[in-house]
Amino acid sequence: MLRRLVVETYHNVIGKLPPVLTVNDGDIVVTDTIDAAGFDKSGVRHALGPNPMNGPIFVSGAEPGDALKVEILSMTPTRDTGWTRSSVAANVVDPEYVRGLPPRDTAIWTIDQHSMTVRLQDPIPGLEDLVLPMRPMIGCFGVAPSLGQSISTATSGEYGGNMDYRLFGPGTTVCLPVFETGALFFVGDCHALQGDGEIVGTGIETTFEVTMRLSVVKEAKITWPRGETSTDIFTIGNARPLDQALQHATTEMLEWLGRDYGLGKTAASHLLGQVVRYDIGNVFDPAYTVACRVSKEWLKR
Amino acid sequence: MLRRLVVETYHNVIGKLPPVLTVNDGDIVVTDTIDAAGFDKSGVRHALGPNPMNGPIFVSGAEPGDALKVEILSMTPTRDTGWTRSSVAANVVDPEYVRGLPPRDTAIWTIDQHSMTVRLQDPIPGLEDLVLPMRPMIGCFGVAPSLGQSISTATSGEYGGNMDYRLFGPGTTVCLPVFETGALFFVGDCHALQGDGEIVGTGIETTFEVTMRLSVVKEAKITWPRGETSTDIFTIGNARPLDQALQHATTEMLEWLGRDYGLGKTAASHLLGQVVRYDIGNVFDPAYTVACRVSKEWLKR
Amino acid sequence: MLRRLVVETYHNVIGKLPPVLTVNDGDIVVTDTIDAAGFDKSGVRHALGPNPMNGPIFVSGAEPGDALKVEILSMTPTRDTGWTRSSVAANVVDPEYVRGLPPRDTAIWTIDQHSMTVRLQDPIPGLEDLVLPMRPMIGCFGVAPSLGQSISTATSGEYGGNMDYRLFGPGTTVCLPVFETGALFFVGDCHALQGDGEIVGTGIETTFEVTMRLSVVKEAKITWPRGETSTDIFTIGNARPLDQALQHATTEMLEWLGRDYGLGKTAASHLLGQVVRYDIGNVFDPAYTVACRVSKEWLKR
Amino acid sequence: MLRRLVVETYHNVIGKLPPVLTVNDGDIVVTDTIDAAGFDKSGVRHALGPNPMNGPIFVSGAEPGDALKVEILSMTPTRDTGWTRSSVAANVVDPEYVRGLPPRDTAIWTIDQHSMTVRLQDPIPGLEDLVLPMRPMIGCFGVAPSLGQSISTATSGEYGGNMDYRLFGPGTTVCLPVFETGALFFVGDCHALQGDGEIVGTGIETTFEVTMRLSVVKEAKITWPRGETSTDIFTIGNARPLDQALQHATTEMLEWLGRDYGLGKTAASHLLGQVVRYDIGNVFDPAYTVACRVSKEWLKR
Repeated sequence: MLRRLVVETYHNVIGKLPPVLTVNDGDIVVTDTIDAAGFDKSGVRHALGPNPMNGPIFVSGAEPGDALKVEILSMTPTRDTGWTRSSVAANVVDPEYVRGLPPRDTAIWTIDQHSMTVRLQDPIPGLEDLVLPMRPMIGCFGVAPSLGQSISTATSGEYGGNMDYRLFGPGTTVCLPVFETGALFFVGDCHALQGDGEIVGTGIETTFEVTMRLSVVKEAKITWPRGETSTDIFTIGNARPLDQALQHATTEMLEWLGRDYGLGKTAASHLLGQVVRYDIGNVFDPAYTVACRVSKEWLKR
Repeated sequence: MLRRLVVETYHNVIGKLPPVLTVNDGDIVVTDTIDAAGFDKSGVRHALGPNPMNGPIFVSGAEPGDALKVEILSMTPTRDTGWTRSSVAANVVDPEYVRGLPPRDTAIWTIDQHSMTVRLQDPIPGLEDLVLPMRPMIGCFGVAPSLGQSISTATSGEYGGNMDYRLFGPGTTVCLPVFETGALFFVGDCHALQGDGEIVGTGIETTFEVTMRLSVVKEAKITWPRGETSTDIFTIGNARPLDQALQHATTEMLEWLGRDYGLGKTAASHLLGQVVRYDIGNVFDPAYTVACRVSKEWLKR
Repeated sequence: MLRRLVVETYHNVIGKLPPVLTVNDGDIVVTDTIDAAGFDKSGVRHALGPNPMNGPIFVSGAEPGDALKVEILSMTPTRDTGWTRSSVAANVVDPEYVRGLPPRDTAIWTIDQHSMTVRLQDPIPGLEDLVLPMRPMIGCFGVAPSLGQSISTATSGEYGGNMDYRLFGPGTTVCLPVFETGALFFVGDCHALQGDGEIVGTGIETTFEVTMRLSVVKEAKITWPRGETSTDIFTIGNARPLDQALQHATTEMLEWLGRDYGLGKTAASHLLGQVVRYDIGNVFDPAYTVACRVSKEWLKR
Repeated sequence: MLRRLVVETYHNVIGKLPPVLTVNDGDIVVTDTIDAAGFDKSGVRHALGPNPMNGPIFVSGAEPGDALKVEILSMTPTRDTGWTRSSVAANVVDPEYVRGLPPRDTAIWTIDQHSMTVRLQDPIPGLEDLVLPMRPMIGCFGVAPSLGQSISTATSGEYGGNMDYRLFGPGTTVCLPVFETGALFFVGDCHALQGDGEIVGTGIETTFEVTMRLSVVKEAKITWPRGETSTDIFTIGNARPLDQALQHATTEMLEWLGRDYGLGKTAASHLLGQVVRYDIGNVFDPAYTVACRVSKEWLKR
């Protein structure tokens, strides 16, 4: 069934809050997201940052130990502008180099919904002709975490959250570990485009109509978010520093290859050692995000 | 001019050692590398590990402040076997998970030089049919470091070294900062294939005939290795943890975009923020390697 | 006024929960804490881990931007046993060394309340005669964090939390930044003794009667917890890795020396450079704790 | 026997260089060190930085697998000034905070050899009356590393090097693992005083007459430097980030407690868990230094 989520109150945390919509296992949900600073498609501010969320959605049948499967079916941009910060973040350059960084102002990008491209509204020297293809992605989404926690949408964890990974776009399916009955799903903070690492501290922040199918995978017993694109499977680790995020993602991938692909740890080591790809989702938020990714070309289920 | 480097004594350090060959700016050098444990194409051991090096080569005209340009023209496998470790390294999984890792034994891979593929010699359950395409790469190469240092080929730094980055293969051109007159170039430790991060601690370690053109870029004034493929440019940071390697690589890219592409720091931030890719070369050696990579599609020189 | 906090329901999060006691600015609060696994002084289990908390206490007059001053007046042990884990944690040794660590069993310690000493109940070879002086400390305490968050008592942040720093004992005064009206103070998880880093993952976990005075410092505008003993002042940073925790603590100390001790950043650098001490509170919890400490001998207010 | 080492040529690396003095096992060596920038006690510059070294000294009888025992008998200041940097280093504060740090100028300190105190030559507001006690220490010393390496005196490793730990002063005995016949000992870079972490990037850099006894401990089979003061034993880990330096130091302490104090890993865990102290030697150099320290009060040999 197709369900529309209309939001009146946005949340700056992901946690055990009263659901604003209840859906059945397998329902498709459509919702309009506002941008990371709380502005909607008309430029009206509905909330303050960080990353105000739509939700939570109660998914019938989801219980702790299950996974919530989120199929990102489509993302339609609903505004003709987006914004970014105008300097790389201080933590991604050599510490002494920070003294010479430009201020962290805001820049506006024009979004062409017809050609699905973006360009700087006020071009600066050297980038006068830069036109980039749009690659929509969800910056922040997740389910209520364990222990009844409510955690800021600035950060992320096992439950998802502000992962800012560019592969969380249309065509990708994500599984999140469920900690509360009904999962309690939140979504928001979409980007028209973002490089690896979100190194300016933002993608191109704008508004979207997002369409997702939400389903329950019973007793999935996963620890970290897992995803699948048309070509790859991947696991997510969210932590600081990058080394630890990578450890979480790699451990989760070894578990996945063991349970679903019949590969013991030695076999999985041989495969990953020669074909694994690591993506740096973000290296800016309180928890960084690393994806451990494997081409489906080398896997048989 | 085409020059052949024949090696009698191998080195486990990269440093200010007596050159075994002197070449002119622009000469092409062909050399046979032995594997990371010192075995040659016939299985004869010539040296102990880590990563015995061919060299050093004195490149006429290279002075401190210049860069040595290394064009990797071709890599021809010269042995029909390679070896890997058979467990992911302890530092790439969650610390408590280490207790359950398999031992770090050695596995043999068969190299098919005709089809340019590799497969495990003794397949293990789940990987019976795994045949992977060969992607030759140089694991360790570099020039004599600053201050007259001689540094183990287990690690890496501004001068290059054991970077274990899978894009250091045929078709890639690398620039290394020169610290000593003649640069003093070393090369060895080639892999038939390796995933991101070198997470089993090896690629498929084997022997190659490597062909490279060595040229001098006067007063290049670079700080870290830089590279170029047919589609991308990239900078390298070598350090622990990953966060610092990424800082070095990003800083070097900002400098490069500023000097050669006319992009001030704000313009470079806008570009990198939306298009940058980070690759994890290795997350195993004493210094990790991160590449900051940009598609040439977005650059005009 | 002396107030007694009697607890019926314990919390595994620190957050915006309904207060169970309201006190005036300057009141003294006495409360019985249970141990990290939820057992009380009689060995009855009242809650599950991690670190069940007493509270929250609403402190009249506390508003966001203020600090809550917590004077730890006394800690009286109320049980004659405590427990610890029996192996150092996997993350404090070299990764490959983890394979040889003993299992993480539980050990019981006998607490002698008369001599204020502890010893292993079942001594093991080499430690037959080990008797250590008790050094009571509060492992986990804090105020409701920003944004309405509720965060697991396994970890810590600007608001305090599971810092596991051995100087949080009787005679120490701590200031915590206030984010919610009334501050909403929580306390629990006390230790009879603990080394730097909490490297076995526990101190000697037991029950105490804790007596604290709670006061409001108006418009203190602090960012991280600050403390004072009879001899030192210190600031706290909670983050991973240790490097970042140290950065937070050092930054907070520079701010403190600037505002309250009249030291500009150059003067503060000269002082800290020659006299600073860093303590590692914990290197086990999701966020590590580093204290930046300065002897009051060198300070004039 | 008392031997005097007079230096003509200083070294910016620690490595396998021709010895300038050969001593017997147990000889006492006296030498004048110059400061980190190469200036001697008369203000004459003899060398450039980083940290020019006296040595190497060949110690008869030292073979790979042994340890070189260095007893620091005395350090007499030989100049009435020292210098420091005048801002904390960029890497010890929050990254965005770097923008507001003062420049890294040089400050001069007056050394009073009679009272053994130091004070800023040009006092700055707030520090007009600051007089600090001198605490002499050796910033950089070590033996030739493995594999014939020569490594910059800016950094450190298993062989010692630029550890910048304030407990390396008179009364401390240090054991260094030997990698080359004769050990090849280097020493220099002494400080009149230094806080934890060397967070301004220097101690009070000056010149000393250093007196040490050098002895050989046969087949000591240690991996990292170990030390002993009148009250404590400690192990050293040199690496980045702090987390890894701490892992090295803790692992080495577990090995030491096992071999020399009869404590199995469980017993050692119980002891360290409740009594260990960690000191941050430096958090500035390319490799950071962490000491794992235990009071001798709790040990019986």
